[in-house]
Amino acid sequence: MISPAEPRRAAIVGTGLIGGSVGLALRRQGWWVTGVDHDEARAARAAELGALDEVGEVAGADVAVIATPVGAVVDAARAALDAGVPVVTDVGSVKAPITETLADPRFVGGHPMAGSEQEGIEGADPDLFRGATWVLTPDENTAPAAFAIVGGMVRSLGAEVIAVPPAAHDRLVAMVSHVPHLTAATLMSLASERADEHRALLRLAAGGFRDMTRIAAGHPGIWPDICSANGTAIAEVFDDLIAALQRTRDLVAAADRRGLLDALEAARTARVNLPARGVTEGPMAVVRVPVPDRPGVLAEVTTLASELEVNIADIEIAHSAEGEAGVLIVVVPAAASERLVSGLVARAYRPSTTRLDTDES
Amino acid sequence: MISPAEPRRAAIVGTGLIGGSVGLALRRQGWWVTGVDHDEARAARAAELGALDEVGEVAGADVAVIATPVGAVVDAARAALDAGVPVVTDVGSVKAPITETLADPRFVGGHPMAGSEQEGIEGADPDLFRGATWVLTPDENTAPAAFAIVGGMVRSLGAEVIAVPPAAHDRLVAMVSHVPHLTAATLMSLASERADEHRALLRLAAGGFRDMTRIAAGHPGIWPDICSANGTAIAEVFDDLIAALQRTRDLVAAADRRGLLDALEAARTARVNLPARGVTEGPMAVVRVPVPDRPGVLAEVTTLASELEVNIADIEIAHSAEGEAGVLIVVVPAAASERLVSGLVARAYRPSTTRLDTDES
Repeated sequence: MISPAEPRRAAIVGTGLIGGSVGLALRRQGWWVTGVDHDEARAARAAELGALDEVGEVAGADVAVIATPVGAVVDAARAALDAGVPVVTDVGSVKAPITETLADPRFVGGHPMAGSEQEGIEGADPDLFRGATWVLTPDENTAPAAFAIVGGMVRSLGAEVIAVPPAAHDRLVAMVSHVPHLTAATLMSLASERADEHRALLRLAAGGFRDMTRIAAGHPGIWPDICSANGTAIAEVFDDLIAALQRTRDLVAAADRRGLLDALEAARTARVNLPARGVTEGPMAVVRVPVPDRPGVLAEVTTLASELEVNIADIEIAHSAEGEAGVLIVVVPAAASERLVSGLVARAYRPSTTRLDTDES
Repeated sequence: MISPAEPRRAAIVGTGLIGGSVGLALRRQGWWVTGVDHDEARAARAAELGALDEVGEVAGADVAVIATPVGAVVDAARAALDAGVPVVTDVGSVKAPITETLADPRFVGGHPMAGSEQEGIEGADPDLFRGATWVLTPDENTAPAAFAIVGGMVRSLGAEVIAVPPAAHDRLVAMVSHVPHLTAATLMSLASERADEHRALLRLAAGGFRDMTRIAAGHPGIWPDICSANGTAIAEVFDDLIAALQRTRDLVAAADRRGLLDALEAARTARVNLPARGVTEGPMAVVRVPVPDRPGVLAEVTTLASELEVNIADIEIAHSAEGEAGVLIVVVPAAASERLVSGLVARAYRPSTTRLDTDES
């Protein structure tokens, strides 16, 4: 397998928890890392903590990682692209507004599903991404070569790549991250208001309540940006959640024991089967797809997989020596691989499949 | 301080996780513990595991602990009372329907705020209640002597007693336990339904979502009983929660950054200040209240404290030698003790206050 020339110089824009952690992890592997932050003291602190070789200079980097708050990503990415950086990625938790606005073959949207109780550069940790899922969201503009470089870099940090179309990503995180966070905060505030009427209340809060509201203790600073970027998807999921809660409430009010039991049993089954983070379940298969080296190919394959309900556990591009064509290497659950292969064949691709040994993962 | 003759024989009705744990803990302190279960094999297993000295015999016990599901408590408690057991308590998570139906001076409602990932008798643990809060819900029928015996027993298991009127308890647990549980299940089911449309979804679930839905993995068997017993309070809290979620949703849809930030900041403050379980904050004071030894006294004092928003951290009854009067010993936050004392004086009690050293707790 022939890789593109290995990039070695990264520029980090925004040296907070995530940017700093990326810097630490890349430097540990011998990258030369520069970085900037709109708060100069924070960039200086990042350098002091070993997350940057030096402050400054985005131009000249092989890869720029935009790790600013979501609302600042587009401008920072555009600046890096304008400065001639050949590959730019970001870590924002909303993707479609960013990829659609930038619409540049050199830009690859990204979202590491990793966080920390820590906040800011002081919490930066080179192992933050080890075993984490890192979503990449190629669209019809993304150059396969840019995707391959970002994918390789992300993997080298210990993360597993999962490729999802940008809009699908945004709907997913609204469901499993944004709305749960806002719900935890709402529940906490409601309990607190009621506690004003009866002081004993909060001492009675058992473990479940504590678990459910823990994320509400996080700094709220990032949320206005996220909610403004992903407002439509969030409002939609809220509507669904409110309707579902109303149904649960009505089961209780109607004393519908059977309905309640069925609903809770379904939830229990779903929770028990919630896959562990970064752990792929069951045997996996590798689907190799020869592809022309042009934008659009990646988005075609990931969108197809998404439509066919095939979960892409990992995706990589191997380039041919001539650099004109390549092979897309897609890792999917073995049980779903045939579905993906049929879909690809129907679209005139020529995929081949190999089953992976389960003791690999 | 003169205690009532120390009880030494307990009967456990329902030898599951809680009943079994009570049995193990009491036996460790030298009590003679018998027990029954509608499932004879489970009672036998409880004896085998050391939670019971022997299976059978509720009559003859000094105290009966009803640890059946909520829906079976009233019948089991009535049977124990009819068999002549002088003090009966339960561990059901809903209290008003039980205390109101039984209306017996020998019955003291209870609810240990302790659980376990384990389920059933196999998970029984004599240390389950160590440091936990154990709510007792005396009402106007409760005999102070019965309350003193149950309070002493509960304390001997390592729990802290908190006394709350039954209806207030039920509203509280709807808010901090029942509705959060049902909300976690609803959120989990909704995410799971959406996952059917896109398999990648659940692998993207980050820590916050996992925390929030963890309790949905519990066995649903106890919930129809709880919801049927506490349906009114649960539906009420659901209505409040749904309205609050609608407000949060509207802040997002309106892109009201300031409103969102304020809401999340309020939630954060509330969560950060959520008191730890079983840990009393700040200096405490002991209020001693000479009381006639008659039913109603306890309920009067706990209801008054509840109305005055004074959190009773612990409550105990010391009997005089003659057994006709006693002293109610109430532990409350020092800052709130004057409020309680004024309220008691206004009701013709003669309380006295001592401040506790903070290094005690």
